[in-house]
Amino acid sequence: MTERIREFLRNRREDGPCLVVDLEVVRDNYLTFARALPDTRVFYAVKANPSPEVLSLLAELGSSFDTASVAEIEMVLAAGAGPDRISFGNTIKKERDIARAYALGVRLFAVDCVAEVDKIVRAAPGARVFCRILCDGAGAEWPLSRKFGCEPSLAVSVLEHAHRNGLEAYGVSFHVGSQQGNPEAWDQALTAAAEVFRNCAERGIHLSMVNLGGGFPAKYLKEMPAVEVYGNAIFQALRRHFGNAIPETIIEPGRGMVGDAGVIEAEVVLVSTKSAEETLRWVYLDIGKFGGLAETMDEAIRYPIRTPRDGDAVSDCVIAGPTCDSADVLYEREPYALPVSLAIGDKVLIEGTGAYTTTYSAVAFNGFPPLRAYHI
Amino acid sequence: MTERIREFLRNRREDGPCLVVDLEVVRDNYLTFARALPDTRVFYAVKANPSPEVLSLLAELGSSFDTASVAEIEMVLAAGAGPDRISFGNTIKKERDIARAYALGVRLFAVDCVAEVDKIVRAAPGARVFCRILCDGAGAEWPLSRKFGCEPSLAVSVLEHAHRNGLEAYGVSFHVGSQQGNPEAWDQALTAAAEVFRNCAERGIHLSMVNLGGGFPAKYLKEMPAVEVYGNAIFQALRRHFGNAIPETIIEPGRGMVGDAGVIEAEVVLVSTKSAEETLRWVYLDIGKFGGLAETMDEAIRYPIRTPRDGDAVSDCVIAGPTCDSADVLYEREPYALPVSLAIGDKVLIEGTGAYTTTYSAVAFNGFPPLRAYHI
Repeated sequence: MTERIREFLRNRREDGPCLVVDLEVVRDNYLTFARALPDTRVFYAVKANPSPEVLSLLAELGSSFDTASVAEIEMVLAAGAGPDRISFGNTIKKERDIARAYALGVRLFAVDCVAEVDKIVRAAPGARVFCRILCDGAGAEWPLSRKFGCEPSLAVSVLEHAHRNGLEAYGVSFHVGSQQGNPEAWDQALTAAAEVFRNCAERGIHLSMVNLGGGFPAKYLKEMPAVEVYGNAIFQALRRHFGNAIPETIIEPGRGMVGDAGVIEAEVVLVSTKSAEETLRWVYLDIGKFGGLAETMDEAIRYPIRTPRDGDAVSDCVIAGPTCDSADVLYEREPYALPVSLAIGDKVLIEGTGAYTTTYSAVAFNGFPPLRAYHI
Repeated sequence: MTERIREFLRNRREDGPCLVVDLEVVRDNYLTFARALPDTRVFYAVKANPSPEVLSLLAELGSSFDTASVAEIEMVLAAGAGPDRISFGNTIKKERDIARAYALGVRLFAVDCVAEVDKIVRAAPGARVFCRILCDGAGAEWPLSRKFGCEPSLAVSVLEHAHRNGLEAYGVSFHVGSQQGNPEAWDQALTAAAEVFRNCAERGIHLSMVNLGGGFPAKYLKEMPAVEVYGNAIFQALRRHFGNAIPETIIEPGRGMVGDAGVIEAEVVLVSTKSAEETLRWVYLDIGKFGGLAETMDEAIRYPIRTPRDGDAVSDCVIAGPTCDSADVLYEREPYALPVSLAIGDKVLIEGTGAYTTTYSAVAFNGFPPLRAYHI
């Protein structure tokens, strides 16, 4: 929560929840990443928050961009960054989308299988590719499934296939899991990456880049190590596994870049109990899982919530959204302590909501409009 | 899948996934409900699919409407139904939204606690209210949490409070859980409802309506009993618990009205394995959890998927969506058997997708547009 956001909300008049993002915080976060990993190129993960204001600011600061679709590539170009600063980082691409990206000047693509390489050979001849490898994601609050990446042994074949078909086998990528609390998590992945480098070198293919992915945490309720600690741990791991031949590196922060820059203002719509005897309160807000807080799925992300009654005595609450969907419950398994005095009509502030909220929002579920957002 | 949908898709040219809903099926479903429960008013649950075409058709057929928000109320009015055919069925309403609904002529509101009654007393004087009671949801594929409703004992106090404050204490509602496979599920809830009727009568309050909710299943992969079986089971349960004084009844089908009327056409973007040894294929479609298939959450709803290779030998697949989100996996815990010959670029048909797809779709997650829909 910043003074600028506080000031903005004081003057806000319209109804309904909204997200306010402080661009000064985004700027600080970018500079912190740049300082903590000085030899690493920052590719902002556009999907975290693709607002034109965020993209323009980062383009101006010199950031590069990790994109998931042609629409995101177009947004980055519109924000003033050239195609040389864009990675098409989605491993699942239609061949015609690869061709469109190539036509727009993009030359860097992610792959994790031979079939995806074949599409790039046809639609983006000569481009650079990096192969994503699987990583176990232990220690992450939003752990990754096996959806992206392949086993390191297959990665060698994939990169060799790319090399033999006229692409530049550029490197390896991995992702240690979103909101990763353990700075040492990169070490294990770098062991595997270094092995892919060696196995490729034995086949005469010289990789030059390691994409360290995202995973850098935003500040939610739990304390997390500072970016500098991550930077240092990663550098040490690179030295350990690559010796003096440290490759080019890329990071892809999304949540870590914009998460703590945003605050959602919401309203308490109802406070009730389920029987006369129960003390557990249900607190219903005008925002829920379908209005932008999708990352509360399985109660994965626990946002700090501030109320105008903070300091009063607290008791446990279930927190739920406003839709007629029974799955639209934010915190139930582990109830959330809120002031006993919390009342219908109170405004609450949900902090750390700058990432993965606006675009996750449903089009019009239950007739509720998507999350409004202001980037100041 | 109907011949009309098949014909429409044959002539479709644009790129990207789309939903096609056959309005003839919706018409048949409405008439089936009306016949199976001849003394029951049908309130279509607008949230299942609020398209103007569906609403106009149902308005014309004489349906009433269960709404979750003022926006949905406005959509129903625009479709030609009067406010006397509208229930504001969300138990979580802002007082100013109750006032707006009242100004639009709506006189029927759901409540589940005293605080909500108080809002209605102030914003919709004299209106009818029904109190939702908790129900355990056993047997449902999309079971309900305790989010909506209160214990039956509290319901009596809530209705008494409404009565003493100038509202019409109209009745009781419950929901046996969405996609309910057991026609006997209504019996237990009706036991509780009848008890609320008796306890209210002892206090001089004569309720007249039971809202039987939704829960009527759409046809997905599992065989479900026919609507007639549900109608008969409900009628028997009403007789059992209310004797000769059977109350007015309401049903709120959503999924059961539109689910099997829709088919999504999607494209296979990628087929791969995670290592050279593995046989488990990953099939990536151009639609996933954030593009409209949110109800695959926890693999709750298992849609039938047809491919152009049906009839060929099959093997297990994990099915995932096209976004860079690792949670965007549709079926993994219980893999899905698809033809071994399935190839990149194949079009697949995801059946039973007429409900809870278009509006659940994210605004622009990963830059992918919301689900396109055609109602024919």
